[in-house]
Amino acid sequence: STRGHRLNGSRYVSKTATKSVSEFEYDAPSMKTAVPGPNDIQLCLSPGLQNVGAVHFFCNYEESRGNYLVDVDGNRMLDVYTQISSIPIGYNHPALMKVMTNPNNVSTFVNRPALGILPPENFPDKLIESLLSIAPSGMRRVQTMACGSCSNENAFKTMFIWYRNKERGYANPSEQEVDTCMINQSPGCPDLSILSFMGAFHGRTLGCLATTHSKAIHKLDIPSFDWPIAPFPKLQYPLEEFVRENAQEEARCLEEVEDLIVKWRQKGKPVAGIVIEPIQAEGGDNHASPDFFSKLRNIARKHGCAFHVDEVQTGGGTTGKFWGHEHWGLDDPADVVSFSKKLLTGGYYHRDELKPDKPYRIFNTWMGDPSKNLFLSEVLNVIRRENLLEVVTRSGKALLQGLYTLQTQYPHILSRARGQGTFCAIDACNDATRDSIMIKARNKGLFMGSCGEKTIRFRPALVFKEYHVHQLLNILNDVLAEHK
Amino acid sequence: STRGHRLNGSRYVSKTATKSVSEFEYDAPSMKTAVPGPNDIQLCLSPGLQNVGAVHFFCNYEESRGNYLVDVDGNRMLDVYTQISSIPIGYNHPALMKVMTNPNNVSTFVNRPALGILPPENFPDKLIESLLSIAPSGMRRVQTMACGSCSNENAFKTMFIWYRNKERGYANPSEQEVDTCMINQSPGCPDLSILSFMGAFHGRTLGCLATTHSKAIHKLDIPSFDWPIAPFPKLQYPLEEFVRENAQEEARCLEEVEDLIVKWRQKGKPVAGIVIEPIQAEGGDNHASPDFFSKLRNIARKHGCAFHVDEVQTGGGTTGKFWGHEHWGLDDPADVVSFSKKLLTGGYYHRDELKPDKPYRIFNTWMGDPSKNLFLSEVLNVIRRENLLEVVTRSGKALLQGLYTLQTQYPHILSRARGQGTFCAIDACNDATRDSIMIKARNKGLFMGSCGEKTIRFRPALVFKEYHVHQLLNILNDVLAEHK
Repeated sequence: STRGHRLNGSRYVSKTATKSVSEFEYDAPSMKTAVPGPNDIQLCLSPGLQNVGAVHFFCNYEESRGNYLVDVDGNRMLDVYTQISSIPIGYNHPALMKVMTNPNNVSTFVNRPALGILPPENFPDKLIESLLSIAPSGMRRVQTMACGSCSNENAFKTMFIWYRNKERGYANPSEQEVDTCMINQSPGCPDLSILSFMGAFHGRTLGCLATTHSKAIHKLDIPSFDWPIAPFPKLQYPLEEFVRENAQEEARCLEEVEDLIVKWRQKGKPVAGIVIEPIQAEGGDNHASPDFFSKLRNIARKHGCAFHVDEVQTGGGTTGKFWGHEHWGLDDPADVVSFSKKLLTGGYYHRDELKPDKPYRIFNTWMGDPSKNLFLSEVLNVIRRENLLEVVTRSGKALLQGLYTLQTQYPHILSRARGQGTFCAIDACNDATRDSIMIKARNKGLFMGSCGEKTIRFRPALVFKEYHVHQLLNILNDVLAEHK
Repeated sequence: STRGHRLNGSRYVSKTATKSVSEFEYDAPSMKTAVPGPNDIQLCLSPGLQNVGAVHFFCNYEESRGNYLVDVDGNRMLDVYTQISSIPIGYNHPALMKVMTNPNNVSTFVNRPALGILPPENFPDKLIESLLSIAPSGMRRVQTMACGSCSNENAFKTMFIWYRNKERGYANPSEQEVDTCMINQSPGCPDLSILSFMGAFHGRTLGCLATTHSKAIHKLDIPSFDWPIAPFPKLQYPLEEFVRENAQEEARCLEEVEDLIVKWRQKGKPVAGIVIEPIQAEGGDNHASPDFFSKLRNIARKHGCAFHVDEVQTGGGTTGKFWGHEHWGLDDPADVVSFSKKLLTGGYYHRDELKPDKPYRIFNTWMGDPSKNLFLSEVLNVIRRENLLEVVTRSGKALLQGLYTLQTQYPHILSRARGQGTFCAIDACNDATRDSIMIKARNKGLFMGSCGEKTIRFRPALVFKEYHVHQLLNILNDVLAEHK
């Protein structure tokens, strides 16, 4: 890590980057205007634009490369937000360009099938070489979906179906169940619940939203379900320095989980499943220990609830392992694991027992998109060939070390640096300071994301090298030095 | 229509089809084995396959062309189901192949953006030339989404937000609302409802599913909302022959709608929106008259409910107009119109008043997929260039006329032929007969879909010509002649 702090960019790149990446990527940010620049401001006036309020800036994706995102004013930024953590191996990776120019692939893009009923000939093989090759421990089944919300919605449905089948002893549903479900009434539509955690984010469709508790703007005015919400541990960082305090806090939360499961069963709304992120992302990058997750998994088993790990943001290698929950070291960590973003397709894995008893219970028109699986296969090849999980681990250590150094240098501005792999975060003293740091950094060529109330989150692509870490830290250091 | 019944395929095609289609399409079905054939049966044993129960057969999409779907045993079928009504202009249309081989488009496929925050430079223009160019009457705003369910979920949210903003007089939410919404409680998560109809299908995520009432298998075991469900008119066909009886039935349903709106308001669960399909599709191809929809629209306005027309299956030209609801002839037909399937991207249009008051209220990572918009632009070009709405109208007339003839010939087997454009259906005497007809037709090279309890639905692509209608009718006639 001393070596890592030397800013010797070109030597470093030639040593560790494969040719395919280093040859086409830019060396550094390059800024021509403030962001948003004049071209950007012009585009925001277009009558075709629908949601101008949320737009950060317009991008020139053709000119973007690797870790560098180029905007419509020719500003080239080091991008550590990567389209809300959804670009796995950087912009315009040559391996992905080749997928597009391979004539054998054209039909897959042009003819989107109804995968559930009319799969293409190569679909089972493509699943084996892509999603099934990275299946989490204990899982041999995967269902693709179009996006993260649909993945979680259908994962919830899978847990409800499994739970009710258990309850009725795998018998056929009663006539009353069949009749009442058509009009949204119990017992056909039973009062089952999913237990979630304060600060969680699992999506914004109505089922998902009932388990999302990150920001009021996500939930205000939308009808919801009366489902139990447990406290998520509020840990002190660095975790190694607060082991005892954090263990106490985690014990408090686990106790509350069990109380809620009992209470909701008594209410007549039994908990069919528990859903949790390995690291709460939108909610402010909140971590918990492997011990917490292991005990939570046991509570789920003890009470007959399915255990659903939502890896939509943590999955795909960004924590240094392919799945965030692999850090827990459990043989049997989950019943359901959902994904999207860096996997390019949505979907979820599940254990054999959770397979629905009949076809068409989990179903929709597209059931995913084989063209996304094509890209995913290639992404996985690149991850293996370029040892990107090792790259993430190395870069993540350098990044976290750098954030520790910065918060020591600027204790009145920064605190609570934390991370796993490059999935790192640091808090500002308040939201205004956080936002100001982010804007100043952007104007110096570093594009970051925010989460929680006053947190900066780092979500670089897997091709983010130590070389890029140093660029990031240098810019951040300059901003903080000026901020004082 | 006499002319239309003459089987003079090649002359007809050379007269009306553009070269681009007629040159590459096959002439007729060609069957080598029964379906499923041996290669298909082999593939169903693959360990990579997840939901073998729902699979009809595996397809060779590379070899499929226009209206003809080829399976892995080399069987070439006339496809009038088109991936659950989602292939707009047939398989491997040359215009769509060109989108793929245009190097300017590569970046759009390789770099999927977070559209809500970092749109590509050409995104507003692409929206203008694609989705906004076909916007329904009164609408200038469109929000793209990844699939039909997400479109309806977010359309519902848009209506809830609009309704609550009206209720609070466009003031900021109270502190109590902000606090309670975080824990799924009223008033922050209000008890609002969406009124839907028996037999409706609006998707299968939890919000959508609360408005879906087509088959028990869709809903069983999934928790739902206590939302009002009105009867959908059960009309007699042909509509022209039962005008008085049908008008009475529609009046009965409309009365029930008003009763339910009043009742649910009294229950403290006011109806924020009414959602309806122009033709109930999954529920059995149930039609209603323009007068019914016009009066329903007025009821929505009178009671302050938004009116949401779900065009996921009816949209995109299949009824002979681009939107199914254009047949109603209303100046002001809807507040929200959702789409997916043939539009290749999901999404919904809405009136200006329904624009959420703040950014990030309607939001997710991808917010659609610009690569689907690229294909859609080209589909719209083809629809205009080849006058496909006229083609649909002409083919639809020939198809419906042919179905009338068949049900006259086989009154003990077929009844209730109905349709608009090529969006046609006919009922068999029972589900076993329906299924048997479909399997026999498939083995003769005609692939159809089913819906409702005993209905065959026809959902050909927009390039389905009178030539293909006659192939369809000939095969169906052969099957029915043998059935007796």
